[in-house]
Amino acid sequence: MSKENKLTPRSQDFNDWYNAVVQMADLADYGPVRGTMIVKPYGWAIWENIQKALDTRFKATGVENAGFPMFIPLSFLQKEAKHIEGFAPELAIVTHGGGEELAEPLVVRPTSETIIGHAYSNWVQSYRDLPILINLWNSVVRWEMRTKLFLRTLEFYWQEGHTAHATSEEADARTRMMLDVYTDFAVNEAAVPVIPGEKSEMERFAGAVQTTTIEAMMGDGKALQAATSHNLGQNFAKAFEIQYLDENNQQQFAWTTSWGLSTRFIGAIIMTHGDDNGLVLPPNIAPIQVVVVPIYKTDDDKAALIAAANKLAQELKDAEITVKVDARENLSPGFKFNDWEMRGVPVRLELGPRDLENNAVVAARRDIPGRDGKQSLSLDGLAPNIQALLSEIQANLLAKATQFREDNTHAAASMEEFEQAVKTGFARVWWAGDTEDEIAIKEKTKATLRCFPHQQPGGNGICFYTGKPADRIAIFARAY
Amino acid sequence: MSKENKLTPRSQDFNDWYNAVVQMADLADYGPVRGTMIVKPYGWAIWENIQKALDTRFKATGVENAGFPMFIPLSFLQKEAKHIEGFAPELAIVTHGGGEELAEPLVVRPTSETIIGHAYSNWVQSYRDLPILINLWNSVVRWEMRTKLFLRTLEFYWQEGHTAHATSEEADARTRMMLDVYTDFAVNEAAVPVIPGEKSEMERFAGAVQTTTIEAMMGDGKALQAATSHNLGQNFAKAFEIQYLDENNQQQFAWTTSWGLSTRFIGAIIMTHGDDNGLVLPPNIAPIQVVVVPIYKTDDDKAALIAAANKLAQELKDAEITVKVDARENLSPGFKFNDWEMRGVPVRLELGPRDLENNAVVAARRDIPGRDGKQSLSLDGLAPNIQALLSEIQANLLAKATQFREDNTHAAASMEEFEQAVKTGFARVWWAGDTEDEIAIKEKTKATLRCFPHQQPGGNGICFYTGKPADRIAIFARAY
Repeated sequence: MSKENKLTPRSQDFNDWYNAVVQMADLADYGPVRGTMIVKPYGWAIWENIQKALDTRFKATGVENAGFPMFIPLSFLQKEAKHIEGFAPELAIVTHGGGEELAEPLVVRPTSETIIGHAYSNWVQSYRDLPILINLWNSVVRWEMRTKLFLRTLEFYWQEGHTAHATSEEADARTRMMLDVYTDFAVNEAAVPVIPGEKSEMERFAGAVQTTTIEAMMGDGKALQAATSHNLGQNFAKAFEIQYLDENNQQQFAWTTSWGLSTRFIGAIIMTHGDDNGLVLPPNIAPIQVVVVPIYKTDDDKAALIAAANKLAQELKDAEITVKVDARENLSPGFKFNDWEMRGVPVRLELGPRDLENNAVVAARRDIPGRDGKQSLSLDGLAPNIQALLSEIQANLLAKATQFREDNTHAAASMEEFEQAVKTGFARVWWAGDTEDEIAIKEKTKATLRCFPHQQPGGNGICFYTGKPADRIAIFARAY
Repeated sequence: MSKENKLTPRSQDFNDWYNAVVQMADLADYGPVRGTMIVKPYGWAIWENIQKALDTRFKATGVENAGFPMFIPLSFLQKEAKHIEGFAPELAIVTHGGGEELAEPLVVRPTSETIIGHAYSNWVQSYRDLPILINLWNSVVRWEMRTKLFLRTLEFYWQEGHTAHATSEEADARTRMMLDVYTDFAVNEAAVPVIPGEKSEMERFAGAVQTTTIEAMMGDGKALQAATSHNLGQNFAKAFEIQYLDENNQQQFAWTTSWGLSTRFIGAIIMTHGDDNGLVLPPNIAPIQVVVVPIYKTDDDKAALIAAANKLAQELKDAEITVKVDARENLSPGFKFNDWEMRGVPVRLELGPRDLENNAVVAARRDIPGRDGKQSLSLDGLAPNIQALLSEIQANLLAKATQFREDNTHAAASMEEFEQAVKTGFARVWWAGDTEDEIAIKEKTKATLRCFPHQQPGGNGICFYTGKPADRIAIFARAY
């Protein structure tokens, strides 16, 4: 944020721009404890829209919500060897409760696989008790050292789904199904194009046999893991003894999955669509889709224009468009325009005395700056025109972001090409390397293997790094 | 719970009955850490309906949701003297994070007045920044020694609203407004009749200048504080320096309020409406309003009846009734009837071959047991009849609970009458005593001053305890 409280241009310093947008669009702030986050009402309203869109989709697949405790005995985390190895450095520990030292320290959940495993082992006896399909909306704590609002904070909000199944195939299908849900949400609600794919062994969730992911390209060409869906195999079922009697009366271990999307996704929206004027929100996620700014000089005009603005707003509300009339006193129209642009409202309606005389209103699109994004619309039959405009903006944001990603994704057949590609975006390469190779590449270029896209070209190629024959394409990038 | 997995009769042991209903209706269970609660999907679905009903009402008064961190520096709690005095014995303390001992211990929020006070002091500069009207949906931790699911657990779910205002009058009006919201919700959605009123000084929230409450009578005659709304005066504004420049450019302290309703309310619903067959849910809060049980013996019948049940269910869904068809295999209709009665579903539709022949279905009301609650309804135009039936059940539950409360509320002019009254219900008395008198009464009778009802008879009387002239009626009862 520059001294004059003006937004740093995105191209000048992407990081500075991001931090300033989060503050100036009034989305979030740091809490008093280092690295914790206060999500302010406007940021939370975006999160509520994300929640609604996901929750409806989850429930359509048979998932139910529940509430699980935030406190987990430390010993639970130690039951799955890789899980504790992955999470130990990030734990917050409660040692005292009710004025006394606790016999066993408690962990504030970094994720709930262990406490879920414990509960499911009590709940599951027979194959008839399966599948269990549960989701939690909560917050989790991971003691991050370097924090950034929405992207990496000590506590963050998310949903974590946890399912248990009778067969490996069912668990596999559920892992894929939930990734499809995330993909559908990201593309069709948030206008964030994503690449669904599988993580390499190195990038897997601690305790999973397979981690799938949706990867998005941010405005600076870096990748952001926007959601993950894990096939946990029988790892947690064995650690927590989730066992059932099958139809032949044989004792079997269950197969489990887990999947999550967090407030980090708000960071993805900001960094995918935002511009030099601030936040740009896709209409399907925007808490306010249309803002109406009445413009007047005299008191007579004021009364007439506010009345007209309210009438118009009511018509839009009746058509299920979320709308706000900005009748704040002592603020110029120009200030208001900037303010709502900063907050990313998709459509601004400017209503002045001359517009009203002409039974019209000026509609300004947030996604197309300046005059090109402005048009005069008749006040008659306004709602369907605004609905069409919102759809157009939604589609345009997705198209622009997709184009940007395509423009900044490059095939690479050599290390030189690879290094060039990951400087500005994604490298798309044939890959036959192993974990050691990934580590070496990361050290040299800061790029990591984001995923093996589910959508593969087929055929074979030569691994750009090892020179070995490869049957899979991988995406590498620097990442958040 | 008796050994045969049958519900203890409510009249025999209310406490045992309550615990069994929570388990057998599949609402909740204890977590692995002593006193923590797992809210199972069916219990959580009730909570979601409560959330929806409240959230809509909050937003209609201009309140917005936000997210605040769970970790609060211990020093924050110490800034308001009475607040720390009230909460110190119940705190959970985080001493280690990221593998290191923390310089300052953190508290897991028992309530958020302090961290809110800190944030508001940053956000408020001028009178134009007021009012701030924010609500949080979260969970809080209080280290309770004796726990009971929904009523008193180490961690519980709730909403906590926090507002800041320019004047004492506004804060007072908001305190009252939110109590009105709770009253409206309790009476019209949960069919729980409540007495809105003011707490005595002794029963006030730690740090409040006034605590208002809605008090409900449970099925055993005991009182339950179902929600509270606090006027915090300038106590927290002064402790956290929430100051603003008024219109005359004078620095002023703000006036704040807070108000909350928790998953404890689910306990209130259970103990208000439940009976010897289990849970009884008011239709407006029930996750499933209607269950359809197809009854068949032959495979031919089965196909036809399940098809008819699904068709009927779709008609009800189209009329925005939540409905479930219970087509589970290998379970008798009798088992299913008991199961859904235990879960408190307001209406059961029994659909057998003969019903289908007659183009009819048998509707059984949960609120009226046995034959008296059964009627045959035509399949033609079923939805409006079911809607009417649900409304009737909703009204009946409220009427029954109100009648029960009236029957078990007694005026008392002497200590003998008082002791008799609080054995079975509420004592309604003229009161002019002080905190010492309240303590003495509590020691002698276990009854506490629940509230001074907002609705007073007017006039004067003689305090039953002190013999002094009194100008207010108070409600005393034993309480959860």
